[in-house]
Amino acid sequence: MIKSVLLDLGGVVFVGDEALPGAVDAIARLRANGVDLRFVTNTTQKPLRALLGKLQKLGIDAAEDEVFMPGIAARRYLADHGLRAMLLVHPGLREDFERPAEGKADAVVIGDAGTSFSYASLNAAFRQLDAGAEFLALAANRTFRDGDGQLSLDAGPFVAALEFATGRSATVLGKPSRAFFEAALASLGQPADESVMVGDDVESDVAGAMSAGLAGLLVRTGKYKDGDESTIDPRPTAVVADLGEAVDWVLDRAQS
Amino acid sequence: MIKSVLLDLGGVVFVGDEALPGAVDAIARLRANGVDLRFVTNTTQKPLRALLGKLQKLGIDAAEDEVFMPGIAARRYLADHGLRAMLLVHPGLREDFERPAEGKADAVVIGDAGTSFSYASLNAAFRQLDAGAEFLALAANRTFRDGDGQLSLDAGPFVAALEFATGRSATVLGKPSRAFFEAALASLGQPADESVMVGDDVESDVAGAMSAGLAGLLVRTGKYKDGDESTIDPRPTAVVADLGEAVDWVLDRAQS
Repeated sequence: MIKSVLLDLGGVVFVGDEALPGAVDAIARLRANGVDLRFVTNTTQKPLRALLGKLQKLGIDAAEDEVFMPGIAARRYLADHGLRAMLLVHPGLREDFERPAEGKADAVVIGDAGTSFSYASLNAAFRQLDAGAEFLALAANRTFRDGDGQLSLDAGPFVAALEFATGRSATVLGKPSRAFFEAALASLGQPADESVMVGDDVESDVAGAMSAGLAGLLVRTGKYKDGDESTIDPRPTAVVADLGEAVDWVLDRAQS
Repeated sequence: MIKSVLLDLGGVVFVGDEALPGAVDAIARLRANGVDLRFVTNTTQKPLRALLGKLQKLGIDAAEDEVFMPGIAARRYLADHGLRAMLLVHPGLREDFERPAEGKADAVVIGDAGTSFSYASLNAAFRQLDAGAEFLALAANRTFRDGDGQLSLDAGPFVAALEFATGRSATVLGKPSRAFFEAALASLGQPADESVMVGDDVESDVAGAMSAGLAGLLVRTGKYKDGDESTIDPRPTAVVADLGEAVDWVLDRAQS
């Protein structure tokens, strides 16, 4: 019995600036059938406002509190714990944060800062961590497919550098962190075992959600590659062609 | 029975630009007693020429082939294997290398490049590694005591970043790599079990040499901190006040 759905965005709902075929209609069908949903994305280059604008352009209405992304999770974490942070994040994400700490920080937030990663900025982050600041990471991805078609360094290697230097482990706020899935479920008031995550990343989306107790649906769109489903144990709950088929799977199990 | 001695330099023979008390005389006593010796240092900011000049100024004559340092080890490795390298090393070390590769490299050499570490240079190194270049590191130290008295990031965190990104392990050419100690012993024609390493770094010098089969003497100068000797297992072969006392220890065991 499925009562709620968590949806990845990039590679599931859209690729680049285009909606995937049938994706907008699939989301409308979920809403029409009263299935609660949240968008759970590891986007760390765009602020929430830009992401909502993009969804709206594609014909998808989403409220602010329906979207879970690492930057927003970090902002909440900092607010809940009363922490002033040093930010080493993508410039596009800064508007999602309060003004960063000047001088000594209570926390360091590492994202995919790209060209803002330098010896000076990483060393400054190291010194804050060495002086006791909390160590938060928006994501721990190794690489991403860059604009020139080649792989480039994502946030993960820089998180690994600071983990090695400090001998400490970062708290990862995005997928596949259990806390990230749980925050989305808590906002729905739904238990994990009546919820499903739909994603194209077999590790971050599917394995991550399954170890948090949700069902995990892998779509064959976006970054999916043949055989991905056999790289995790346990295997995905189901493998489907796309979001349309994922929604069929959900609605078959969502009669109330 | 000790026939040869490997000596660390910084913290054992000198600190900054000053010889440690008794150190120059201690080295002279080793030479006068016919004990073979090599200088085995992880210096990666100065070229060999500058290091020899510094020793001479302190009153220590050393030949080129008595000094083992990671940059020289890397140059030999590249020459022996016919490899053209991309260098991400300290600017001061470049003269110890052949002209670096332009375009596709056969190897990537990572040192403590300091402010030459940037997103662009690390990403370029990552892409060379991803395309199959050999992965060499001059050292894997976490941090060093910087000019302002605070800790700063050494080469190790950047090596860790690229290891995480590529899923590969770097070949570390300096201490505590077994191959580095073995190259120094090979140049002496001495077996490990009749040799001793003298150093102030309990891990890199003492534990490293001991796992290569040498005796390991820890001096209480340089970076030594109370209790260092109890952080490794097995413990150092002996702990001595300084290089002078280390040489007493050696000469007691070097009668031929």
